[in-house]
Amino acid sequence: MVKNIIVSGAGPIGALLSLNLAKRGYNVKLLERRADFRSGTLYAGRSINIALSDRGWRGIEQAGITEEICKIAIPMYGRYIHNLDGSTVYMPYGKDQQAIYSVSRAAINITLLNLASQHPAIEVLFNQKTNQLDLSAKRLISEDTQTGLIHEHQADLFFGSDGAFSGSRLSMQLQHDRFEYQQHYIPCAYKELIIPPDIQGGFKMEKNALHIWPRGQFMMIALPNPDGNFTCTLFLPAEGPVSFSKLTTPDEVMQFFKREFSDAVPLMPTLCEDFFNNPTSSLVTVKCYPWVFKNTLALIGDAAHAIVPFYGQGMNCGFEDCMVLSGLLDRHREDWSVVLPEYQRLRKPDGDAIADLAIANFYEMSASTADPKFLLQKKIEARFAELHPDKWIPLYSMVTFSPDLRYSEALRRGNVQQAIMNQIMSRPEIESEWNQHQIETAILEALNDV
Amino acid sequence: MVKNIIVSGAGPIGALLSLNLAKRGYNVKLLERRADFRSGTLYAGRSINIALSDRGWRGIEQAGITEEICKIAIPMYGRYIHNLDGSTVYMPYGKDQQAIYSVSRAAINITLLNLASQHPAIEVLFNQKTNQLDLSAKRLISEDTQTGLIHEHQADLFFGSDGAFSGSRLSMQLQHDRFEYQQHYIPCAYKELIIPPDIQGGFKMEKNALHIWPRGQFMMIALPNPDGNFTCTLFLPAEGPVSFSKLTTPDEVMQFFKREFSDAVPLMPTLCEDFFNNPTSSLVTVKCYPWVFKNTLALIGDAAHAIVPFYGQGMNCGFEDCMVLSGLLDRHREDWSVVLPEYQRLRKPDGDAIADLAIANFYEMSASTADPKFLLQKKIEARFAELHPDKWIPLYSMVTFSPDLRYSEALRRGNVQQAIMNQIMSRPEIESEWNQHQIETAILEALNDV
Repeated sequence: MVKNIIVSGAGPIGALLSLNLAKRGYNVKLLERRADFRSGTLYAGRSINIALSDRGWRGIEQAGITEEICKIAIPMYGRYIHNLDGSTVYMPYGKDQQAIYSVSRAAINITLLNLASQHPAIEVLFNQKTNQLDLSAKRLISEDTQTGLIHEHQADLFFGSDGAFSGSRLSMQLQHDRFEYQQHYIPCAYKELIIPPDIQGGFKMEKNALHIWPRGQFMMIALPNPDGNFTCTLFLPAEGPVSFSKLTTPDEVMQFFKREFSDAVPLMPTLCEDFFNNPTSSLVTVKCYPWVFKNTLALIGDAAHAIVPFYGQGMNCGFEDCMVLSGLLDRHREDWSVVLPEYQRLRKPDGDAIADLAIANFYEMSASTADPKFLLQKKIEARFAELHPDKWIPLYSMVTFSPDLRYSEALRRGNVQQAIMNQIMSRPEIESEWNQHQIETAILEALNDV
Repeated sequence: MVKNIIVSGAGPIGALLSLNLAKRGYNVKLLERRADFRSGTLYAGRSINIALSDRGWRGIEQAGITEEICKIAIPMYGRYIHNLDGSTVYMPYGKDQQAIYSVSRAAINITLLNLASQHPAIEVLFNQKTNQLDLSAKRLISEDTQTGLIHEHQADLFFGSDGAFSGSRLSMQLQHDRFEYQQHYIPCAYKELIIPPDIQGGFKMEKNALHIWPRGQFMMIALPNPDGNFTCTLFLPAEGPVSFSKLTTPDEVMQFFKREFSDAVPLMPTLCEDFFNNPTSSLVTVKCYPWVFKNTLALIGDAAHAIVPFYGQGMNCGFEDCMVLSGLLDRHREDWSVVLPEYQRLRKPDGDAIADLAIANFYEMSASTADPKFLLQKKIEARFAELHPDKWIPLYSMVTFSPDLRYSEALRRGNVQQAIMNQIMSRPEIESEWNQHQIETAILEALNDV
């Protein structure tokens, strides 16, 4: 009988999971390695933005904090492309009022953590470094990094929601025979920069869009914050001819930015200070298997499937893990011996799919959005999807606005659709006939052949 | 200036590396986590056999122990295939007297370790568990697992030769940003069994061959030992309809063996005892990058590239690492700042290649060797290679008998040759015309088209 559960890692996923479990009547101990970041500096000076989309909103809703998060969420209805020559193009993400939402990760985490701390069935402990996790004895030994005191915790079940560099997962890599594990870094690293508000406190660019400066092997993006700021992120190879390793002086930085992002430079008064003060961070993808061990430990969120941020799905996917788990607990009447293997069986292919989709989307954002052919393809797809909404949902919409569709199914359908579009785009007259009847017919026929 | 070097892991690779370095005038400390296995039980009851081939012999030669190892090495000139119906087929590995050699891993390791211990510039320390490796401070802290005493070691350079589950590599996984890492288990696990000598102490099967019972998804192999034993290894999926998980009683084991390896069963009087006494072990492939960190730590052998055993190249490849390193030290006059990056640049593609070749060879050994078409292809290749030795070396010979050819080049050429053979084998009359002039001509033409 499962009664006491330990959740390791008090990020947004761990906090939401704890709340869900506590509401079901379990006693939850939520352990966090770091200090309490509600008063601390974890998020200070770092306005990490989340692009919250439909899958993530479901988690927000389940926690009952939709109203609160709505107040600080800025809808982004499309991509605002900044070309090298200073021209701009706007591409809606979906139809009508479909949007993704720029929200501060800190705000979501803190809101969820406050709720967790107030719940009588949840005990939150900070500064707890896990020294040992013994699944046979169902015992976790932690060390308080402030006091040096050793704590021994017993539980019936453990969750590892401790992120991309999960200690729970590492202990399985070291202890569990036949553990499949893979960590891969893409060539790009990233650095956060800022576009502050104008003198009246207003936004210096279109507020309700995600801004992209696509430059092929690299790009910059910007997301709006409620205080009038934009958080900019430069994604650039760590090494190579055009890379972070070549930007070592203020002159080099200014030259690079003036050449590549000339329209942004006047909006970034603290560019050089920010560039040299802010860290350069790497982007890792982690795939592993199994996610469930001895029916006693389960990995969830980034701990199970760390992905790169280019689809804006990291936290959305982790929240969906929590939702799927809740659904399985309902369906199988809290029989964990059925729920955990089912959770793993269902979610592993979806974690793999969104990991691959996220890497592919880097190329779409950084290269294709600057390509007129790509923009035309998007227009054709949007037109056909409007005419035949039952037959075609663009891949981006399947991932972002279709939370009932599994990531793995979105990937499968997306591949089919891309093969069809490759045919369509290779027609010699496509630029003139793109909105003609024969294109609609050709797509319909290709769909019938699938 | 590099003067003092620490080598972690006193297996065959670590011992050979230490000897090579000591001969060049470096002071070497060779640390081993386990107890001194010359008196201990590490190898007791486990007669792990190495199939030593040309690349490995070079290492043996450099250590000056050729004569000693020759005495205990049994040449295997070919594969001896045991079919399900009891029939057998013999396939030579190469031409003339080309052979691979069955040698005890323990014998090689102990011989090398004795040499290392006797060298005045090498200090060998056992029972040393590495607690910390600080590359910036060039300091390694070890704990003596017998006494509990903590030792601090300084060195100018560190080598990690600590095997497939390398602690040196793990510390890089945890400390080094952008460390690429992948561990993959194949479905098959393995278990060692034995065919003891006959009552006169003689071999019960052909001595100078590697015996294979190929059965598609699984297989058994047997290698001769000087005392008249054969060490058998059963490779079988860990889970599934035909798997270790289904062999839980002596009855199930006997039934399985009688069905699949009927000619071997009478030769294995202790089959059931051995089956349940001996462990079932997993087979891991590890790929990682980089192999060299801050020009202060380098991984070598299985620590850098753990591979499955189906090409018999694990130790051969590790010895080759040592030879390549020696060659680079000669060429670059012991300038380690050049040697280490070059070592990594040269060996990483070869480590990847032999890892992939080793996995592919499982399918060749377990499935193809039972296929008449495959046997015919081998005959055609052998015939053509004899007619045109400058134009064609069969893949197995490139890997095993051509130590001047890099693994990566062998893989590349092997793929080209396989594509040609696919064409040749698809000729409708191939079974009757295989040794005719037109086949030779067709292969020559295909080679010209490459």
